[in-house]
Amino acid sequence: MTTPSNPVSMSDMANAIRALSMDAVQQANSGHPGMPMGMADVAAVLWSKHMKFDPAAPAWADRDRFVLSAGHGSMLLYSILHLAGFEDISMDELKKFRQLDSLTAGHPEYGHTPGVEATTGPLGQGISMSVGMALAERMMNARYGDDLVDHRTWVIASDGDLQEGISHEAISLAGHLGLNRFCVLWDDNEISIDGPTDLSESTDVLKRFEAAGWSVSRIDGHDHAAIDAALQKARSSDKPVLIACRTTIGYGAPTKAGTAGSHGAPLGADEIAGAREALGWTAAPFEIPEEILDAWRATGSADAHQAWQERLAGADRADDFVAQISGEPGETEIAALDAWRQKVAAEKPVLASRAASGQTLAAIIGDWPSLAGGSADLAGSNLTKTPDVGIVKAGDYAGQYIHFGVREHGMAACANGMSLHGGFRPHVATFLVFADYCRPSMRLSSLMHQPVVYVMTHDSIGLGEDGPTHQPVETLASLRAIPNMHVFRPADALETAEAWDLALRRIDGPSVLALSRQKLPFLRSDDGSTNLSASGAYTLSDDVGSPDIVLVATGSEVCLAVEAARTLRAQGRKVRVVSAPCLDLLLEQGDAYLDELFPAGIPVVACEAALRFGWDQVIGRKGGFVGMTGFGASAPAEDLYAHFGITSAAIVEQAEALLA
Amino acid sequence: MTTPSNPVSMSDMANAIRALSMDAVQQANSGHPGMPMGMADVAAVLWSKHMKFDPAAPAWADRDRFVLSAGHGSMLLYSILHLAGFEDISMDELKKFRQLDSLTAGHPEYGHTPGVEATTGPLGQGISMSVGMALAERMMNARYGDDLVDHRTWVIASDGDLQEGISHEAISLAGHLGLNRFCVLWDDNEISIDGPTDLSESTDVLKRFEAAGWSVSRIDGHDHAAIDAALQKARSSDKPVLIACRTTIGYGAPTKAGTAGSHGAPLGADEIAGAREALGWTAAPFEIPEEILDAWRATGSADAHQAWQERLAGADRADDFVAQISGEPGETEIAALDAWRQKVAAEKPVLASRAASGQTLAAIIGDWPSLAGGSADLAGSNLTKTPDVGIVKAGDYAGQYIHFGVREHGMAACANGMSLHGGFRPHVATFLVFADYCRPSMRLSSLMHQPVVYVMTHDSIGLGEDGPTHQPVETLASLRAIPNMHVFRPADALETAEAWDLALRRIDGPSVLALSRQKLPFLRSDDGSTNLSASGAYTLSDDVGSPDIVLVATGSEVCLAVEAARTLRAQGRKVRVVSAPCLDLLLEQGDAYLDELFPAGIPVVACEAALRFGWDQVIGRKGGFVGMTGFGASAPAEDLYAHFGITSAAIVEQAEALLA
Repeated sequence: MTTPSNPVSMSDMANAIRALSMDAVQQANSGHPGMPMGMADVAAVLWSKHMKFDPAAPAWADRDRFVLSAGHGSMLLYSILHLAGFEDISMDELKKFRQLDSLTAGHPEYGHTPGVEATTGPLGQGISMSVGMALAERMMNARYGDDLVDHRTWVIASDGDLQEGISHEAISLAGHLGLNRFCVLWDDNEISIDGPTDLSESTDVLKRFEAAGWSVSRIDGHDHAAIDAALQKARSSDKPVLIACRTTIGYGAPTKAGTAGSHGAPLGADEIAGAREALGWTAAPFEIPEEILDAWRATGSADAHQAWQERLAGADRADDFVAQISGEPGETEIAALDAWRQKVAAEKPVLASRAASGQTLAAIIGDWPSLAGGSADLAGSNLTKTPDVGIVKAGDYAGQYIHFGVREHGMAACANGMSLHGGFRPHVATFLVFADYCRPSMRLSSLMHQPVVYVMTHDSIGLGEDGPTHQPVETLASLRAIPNMHVFRPADALETAEAWDLALRRIDGPSVLALSRQKLPFLRSDDGSTNLSASGAYTLSDDVGSPDIVLVATGSEVCLAVEAARTLRAQGRKVRVVSAPCLDLLLEQGDAYLDELFPAGIPVVACEAALRFGWDQVIGRKGGFVGMTGFGASAPAEDLYAHFGITSAAIVEQAEALLA
Repeated sequence: MTTPSNPVSMSDMANAIRALSMDAVQQANSGHPGMPMGMADVAAVLWSKHMKFDPAAPAWADRDRFVLSAGHGSMLLYSILHLAGFEDISMDELKKFRQLDSLTAGHPEYGHTPGVEATTGPLGQGISMSVGMALAERMMNARYGDDLVDHRTWVIASDGDLQEGISHEAISLAGHLGLNRFCVLWDDNEISIDGPTDLSESTDVLKRFEAAGWSVSRIDGHDHAAIDAALQKARSSDKPVLIACRTTIGYGAPTKAGTAGSHGAPLGADEIAGAREALGWTAAPFEIPEEILDAWRATGSADAHQAWQERLAGADRADDFVAQISGEPGETEIAALDAWRQKVAAEKPVLASRAASGQTLAAIIGDWPSLAGGSADLAGSNLTKTPDVGIVKAGDYAGQYIHFGVREHGMAACANGMSLHGGFRPHVATFLVFADYCRPSMRLSSLMHQPVVYVMTHDSIGLGEDGPTHQPVETLASLRAIPNMHVFRPADALETAEAWDLALRRIDGPSVLALSRQKLPFLRSDDGSTNLSASGAYTLSDDVGSPDIVLVATGSEVCLAVEAARTLRAQGRKVRVVSAPCLDLLLEQGDAYLDELFPAGIPVVACEAALRFGWDQVIGRKGGFVGMTGFGASAPAEDLYAHFGITSAAIVEQAEALLA
């Protein structure tokens, strides 16, 4: 056991982070010691003097959020969680860093490790999700007041985080929305993986953030007083705050400090011994001197948590708050969905599915206070801006609609952050083809099990004249491929209501609603009381007895299958028409259901105005397919459908060929 | 016929753009009149007084490049191409704006319309590809001097272009590389689709660009003298130049000018009539007064082109220049590929495929002067930085390696721009999972038929401890889904050489090389003289007579299939092992080849450390599959393979089940 300086100093507390980080990376023989060692001082001051948290209640709604955007430095966070007393993060877990089934994964994983607020590692995502957290805090504050909602969002970000394009979208949005309870601590260590940052970077970062409406400063990231002062100042800013923390990566390592060599590999036994000596750290690996551990355990805000619980207990709207923060739909919400499905079933409107989606949102938003979202500058096209909805603005966060600007990626990350924060069920919108711009964040929605709703309109060549840059052909397949993502492509207004119903009931993952620009006929004849889309696909029409052929389609092409069935029936064929609004849910049902819809030996023709890719798992290698074989073209929609041969006649032709 | 002011004024020339744009959008009943009308003055001054171009030779190598990043304003460009005398862009083509098979697609499409330098429309792509063009100009200049390479890149960009994250990556890269022959004309019209830009934007754009190392200014975008002066000044800048052009969107339209109403829909007959009156434009729709057309036809740089041709004819290295700018591999290049494949076949090295890729590049780069590329701050991981390669830097563009920084999206767009410019065969590198960050640009590589090589390493759970954020599982499927994209996943060093060979011989589309972090055994026994990967898949080993079972695998899992075959053969089974380095090429061969490799009725088991999605087109719905079923985890690679059951034993087990 070492004898620490008495009383325990901030350096001791920081060195505890450094020692654990070095040791865990060394033991794993894998990981990133440089960042935790460089940012240990900043993190120690932040967590011990400024962060509001209660290790006994990692999910306390009014805690400050801490996001390690530079997720590769995960040992910084795990060290702190252990030191501060998050019960599950035992020393044994630190020893199992980066091993199977440990709580200490290579990068922080939300839902896997208590105290981890967001899954980070893909650069730029953490800082951008944090914008959503900081926004959700202000939006909940606008609804429930300072007594219940009064916390901050702190981020540690790396050079790489700031080089990523998504950071531009995030910081300009944060500046525009005036998110002043938001502080980014930039690990300004002048080192990236390839070497000095000046290999690839010449930006004046402070000026850049100032241009985006941020308050900025630069400090010595190893000067505890300067760190403390900057954090104190950040707490009274009227703008989002960037603090450039000039640090030495791998601080303390005798030969590797200040070099890329300390970034992403174990330091090695000699270097670690040298660092221990330089830091005056004499404790054995994975041992923390008692006094230092005591000092760390004395941090936290259990009292504040207790006081908050008391305020909550006495609050007028405690039940509303608890219900909203839970994320679970309540009875009113579910009833609104049920009522709307049945109303649509009764009225049978002929609408583009994007319009049907807009009407669905408008119908339920009054009963769903947690609904909040916006579009990437396509409000009039995506139709998710409901009549009279309040607009979220700097200083006025009571609304439910956000003008995200042309920032698809930042928008998706913001939605993740709002969802992670709690209190909101975010929906975000753009054209389907621009899912590509959101994709790294959509992947994180899936990985983090966040029920973000992606409303993506103009879902095929049916958008017409804008041409191949705007026409998704591979996009549906590429989204269906993401694990845990449900991709809906509804065929009419009722299926659209069902898609929203399923997306909003879901609490463990994201959904995509792929919606048409063009009008769609109403196809259903049931009363809407049962959500037929829930199994992913269902028989829309059938003849008595075993079918001769099965036609399956999605979205705007289901009406073509219906028309083709009419022709085939006139020829004496028995035809089953299957509508398949969600292939992901269909495949989740298992083979028995698939075999029931598509009986063995009965030929199948599928139709979707997209590539065949991915469909063979439903229709088999020998199934017929009417769709696209490459990129689209610029022309009116009806001309394109004819040009690319996506017609009921083509379905009939393929059916006849298979029946011949 | 109207009588224009005499002599023809710049306003007349600009109004010709406005009139054609209004008329074409009206005739199509679709399109975007606002931007062309707003930026007509800037464009008229640029094209008539500063751009170097020859309408008779749209592909002249030393022309200035003009990129309409705000591609929705395509009628601006089409109007100019017609007015300036690009032969194919007849008035009839303008009348067929946005119609099937016209040259005037909704958004500018490279390869479809002469004079269009890049396919634009997805916002942010144009400005970012332009960085690659401006860089390629400097790099060719460093090789061939001012006599042969001396041109500029001009961009018109919208608010949306600058909101997109990719613009941050692009402008910081341009600033860092000191691309001073690069000028962005920002259409600063304060209007986006949703309404005034201040709905979503508060950035000080000039300050933002200054922070990135640009020279900036603001002008009245309707003041011809100011435009001229700013462009003149831009031509002598030592930094990249941003000119903020304050314009009125829909300039001239009596009620819609200055509003979002003029952005993306026809103005309507009354508004057009009012605009004609306001602009003093009395010519009938699609008619241009002769004097104005003459003035436009007098623009261009045919003389400069002629002089350049003479300089080229007399240049020492004319042949080299012509060969390099052509993009077609010559005999030396092809010979280098052939020799390397055979050398690898003889030496049978045991290497990670990323290492085999690095050795391939190192072996051929001396014979491939057009090879140029870099990595997104992962040089030591992607291994595309060959020994002693020159680094491209501001003011020194002779090298062949670019430190792109953590800018995957901007890097991919830059590669597109370099490829479009001509002279270079760009390769860019990151981890495979981060293909998601590049995806909108990768889609454009495919759509524009540009042979960019995407080197994407760490291609599976085989990367180990970094965990699910860094482990692709759906990425291969999502890339295979992109039309015209060839995705290679080589199984050993020879297949890696073959993948490079195919990617570099290809001139009509992009390739992805998905490469392992971990070492792979050498599997091939042929002499390497024939590229077996060319058909996408081939029989690696087979028994005499019809097989009992076929095992097919890719990349790092082919060795598992080989091992499984050994076990099955020991049990008396006849086994065929198929290696399938490129499913895209395999499927291009057609059904006959597929049926030959996988004979009807013979069971198949596929193995790939990724999702099954997309495989059913090869193995059928009932085929066996050993791979992933969801996201990965953080642990050493060998533990993950065991944990997720991707083993030769699992292949054997599935084979036995199918054979039972």
